[in-house]
Amino acid sequence: MARSVLIRNGTIVTQDSGRRVLSGDVLVEGGIITEIGKVRGGADEEIDAMGAPVLPGLINTHCHVAMSIMKGMADDLPFNDFLDRVFAIDSDRQDKDLLAGSRLGCLELLTGGTTTFVDLYYSQDVIAQAVKEAGMCGVLCWAVLDQQFTTQSGVPLDNCKSFFSRFSEDRNIVPGIGLQGVYVCSEETFMGSRDFSDRTGALMTFHLSETRGEVYEHKEKTGKRPADWLSSIGFLNERCLAAHSAWLTIGEVRALAKAKASISSCPVSNMKLATGGVAPIPEMIREGVNVTVGTDGSTTNNSLDMFGEMKTLALLQKSSRWDPTVVKAQEALDFATVNAAKALGMQNEIGSIEVGKRADIVIMDGRSPTLRPISLENAVSNVVYSAGRGDVRSVLCFGEVVVRDRVPQNLDIGSVIEDGQRAMEAISANKA
Amino acid sequence: MARSVLIRNGTIVTQDSGRRVLSGDVLVEGGIITEIGKVRGGADEEIDAMGAPVLPGLINTHCHVAMSIMKGMADDLPFNDFLDRVFAIDSDRQDKDLLAGSRLGCLELLTGGTTTFVDLYYSQDVIAQAVKEAGMCGVLCWAVLDQQFTTQSGVPLDNCKSFFSRFSEDRNIVPGIGLQGVYVCSEETFMGSRDFSDRTGALMTFHLSETRGEVYEHKEKTGKRPADWLSSIGFLNERCLAAHSAWLTIGEVRALAKAKASISSCPVSNMKLATGGVAPIPEMIREGVNVTVGTDGSTTNNSLDMFGEMKTLALLQKSSRWDPTVVKAQEALDFATVNAAKALGMQNEIGSIEVGKRADIVIMDGRSPTLRPISLENAVSNVVYSAGRGDVRSVLCFGEVVVRDRVPQNLDIGSVIEDGQRAMEAISANKA
Repeated sequence: MARSVLIRNGTIVTQDSGRRVLSGDVLVEGGIITEIGKVRGGADEEIDAMGAPVLPGLINTHCHVAMSIMKGMADDLPFNDFLDRVFAIDSDRQDKDLLAGSRLGCLELLTGGTTTFVDLYYSQDVIAQAVKEAGMCGVLCWAVLDQQFTTQSGVPLDNCKSFFSRFSEDRNIVPGIGLQGVYVCSEETFMGSRDFSDRTGALMTFHLSETRGEVYEHKEKTGKRPADWLSSIGFLNERCLAAHSAWLTIGEVRALAKAKASISSCPVSNMKLATGGVAPIPEMIREGVNVTVGTDGSTTNNSLDMFGEMKTLALLQKSSRWDPTVVKAQEALDFATVNAAKALGMQNEIGSIEVGKRADIVIMDGRSPTLRPISLENAVSNVVYSAGRGDVRSVLCFGEVVVRDRVPQNLDIGSVIEDGQRAMEAISANKA
Repeated sequence: MARSVLIRNGTIVTQDSGRRVLSGDVLVEGGIITEIGKVRGGADEEIDAMGAPVLPGLINTHCHVAMSIMKGMADDLPFNDFLDRVFAIDSDRQDKDLLAGSRLGCLELLTGGTTTFVDLYYSQDVIAQAVKEAGMCGVLCWAVLDQQFTTQSGVPLDNCKSFFSRFSEDRNIVPGIGLQGVYVCSEETFMGSRDFSDRTGALMTFHLSETRGEVYEHKEKTGKRPADWLSSIGFLNERCLAAHSAWLTIGEVRALAKAKASISSCPVSNMKLATGGVAPIPEMIREGVNVTVGTDGSTTNNSLDMFGEMKTLALLQKSSRWDPTVVKAQEALDFATVNAAKALGMQNEIGSIEVGKRADIVIMDGRSPTLRPISLENAVSNVVYSAGRGDVRSVLCFGEVVVRDRVPQNLDIGSVIEDGQRAMEAISANKA
């Protein structure tokens, strides 16, 4: 039984249906939010938010967390050189390297206010170990692709199913399907995944129309653009979470909307790789696509900072449309909270601070000048346009205090950093 | 006499002419860097950098620091509504509000690793007080415009000259001229400023071609685009620092280069206001314009985070050119350090970690996961693409430790935040 926790004196950005921002307290009992407002009485632990924003835990909907130890190894390169270098480093990695990378990535995510993230990778058992150690929530989607393209032993979809059954009852892990993309997944692979998802309710995430090359190569091969093709084979539904989704026509946006699919926009990654496309977010919102946001992995971002990602998403949309009213602060925050929860089918559990929901909560730093001055009116703006991951002070996940005054409670910073450093040095030595 | 300080075990991003990154120590004596490398012996104070990046203090070349208390008050609005709201709030402010805003802004800048900033505003005496209290360096450029457009009492250029003479011998303050822009400054105002600068060596900073409207209105009035016009009247020289400089033709870029002028790109502000232009940075570099970077004020950014600004600058250039090799991490860091020092004519004093230079030094957080793993090869990338202002641990300015373990040594966080909060609430009440 988790201890009770009382967060005092917050500027509570509830993200409830009225998007209310309240001055007051949040009481957490048994891992659940049980009271919001002026709370009388005490709790096992009290945290003084000192007036700072108190947010629902952020949800990063596209990540490759094990790549965290590959940070800064392939920057400022032409796209194909980037891919070559990343694949060369990645192919050399052992399970212990993946674990070191996953621990480092989880540490970065959690201390930066992300309590739940969607990961697309192979060897998700290893990543699951890091997620459980950190005490956070991982929606871990095993990489699925055609057997001819994989380095996995065995059939990737079978590996995915096996992972799913091993972790379907785990508190911290939501197992899912991670389709690599139309360039390495046949119709059979997509529809086999869809069958499995129909039986189990598993999330299906996949890379979609990240680069122009991907779109036109698929069109040459099949006569259809990727999203049109996925729609035509009957793959799309409400359990689909399409990452990037930058190079879409309005017809494809409508196909995603009709299927009730979600997308994860990754603006920093797209901008850094200069893939050219700007996800048509205003059209997606208008047509009813559920928009969320993800950092992508550390080789393309390179930080896993959801605050930076929300800000950059809004900036890129405004600047590319020459319209400062496009993607308002509130919308960007929705992408990272309530919309993301909906994309995962977890809208009744996470994504907002409401009585009855799981207590995944971020308490910002009451002494950070970048969050001041604060009022009920500018709190959301300060969170989206001013805050960074360094402004997070404490984090609750599953009602437990997993970061207290910037110190992670379950992971040892020193050894996580040291192991990550060692793994990177070993890989670099191999490459030299 | 300042105490001696020894920074141990850093990954020293020197920004010297070879752009060397070194593992080792930095010794500071009498406010000056006296030794770099393996330093034997001790000092009055030792700081363990724990392997983290040690950088020259960042230089923010365009800011309006007193606006920090206006954060989040005018977001997501059409450009003219934004201007109306900001001017309405600003016109109501008293000196005590400016001081509260300046203290808050200086606190944000300094704890985020900015040791020197260029400010364009009126009432620079008030801002100077905050800069001196913080123990940082302010290049404070008094707002100059035609008398018919100003709310200042007296002639703005005379006020500027008077401020200059009052602060020309101050350690922390470099007084300068802050021309508002071609829309409110006549040829006489520009050339009168130029005369004063010729006599005194004062920096002349000014807004230039931030919006398309500004460019075409000036062309209608004078037959010339703003930079062409400034060139034609003989205003441009090496003491010019043009902020924004987004809507420039290649001819104007060449005019700036020929005059040895500098520019301050403000990508976040431009993107958030959706002013449409993207500063032609690759062409500026090619033609020899000295490029620097600034955050602009808190109503348009809204954070004063130079790390975020470097990253966004690189991202915007890459994405708008569809070329990931454009503006590399090293170039972005140059803009914020050595190039900025050159723009201020202070290249012999600040901008790099070299023996004999003033000890303005930033020590990052050795326990931040976003900066790990680190090597001599990826240190610059980690600083530009991963770090945020929250990853700064300690800061030296003029050889003094002004931020120690995240705690500012000269400003009291609690009262700065409280005063800022009170000032914002008073202004909001006035407006209601």
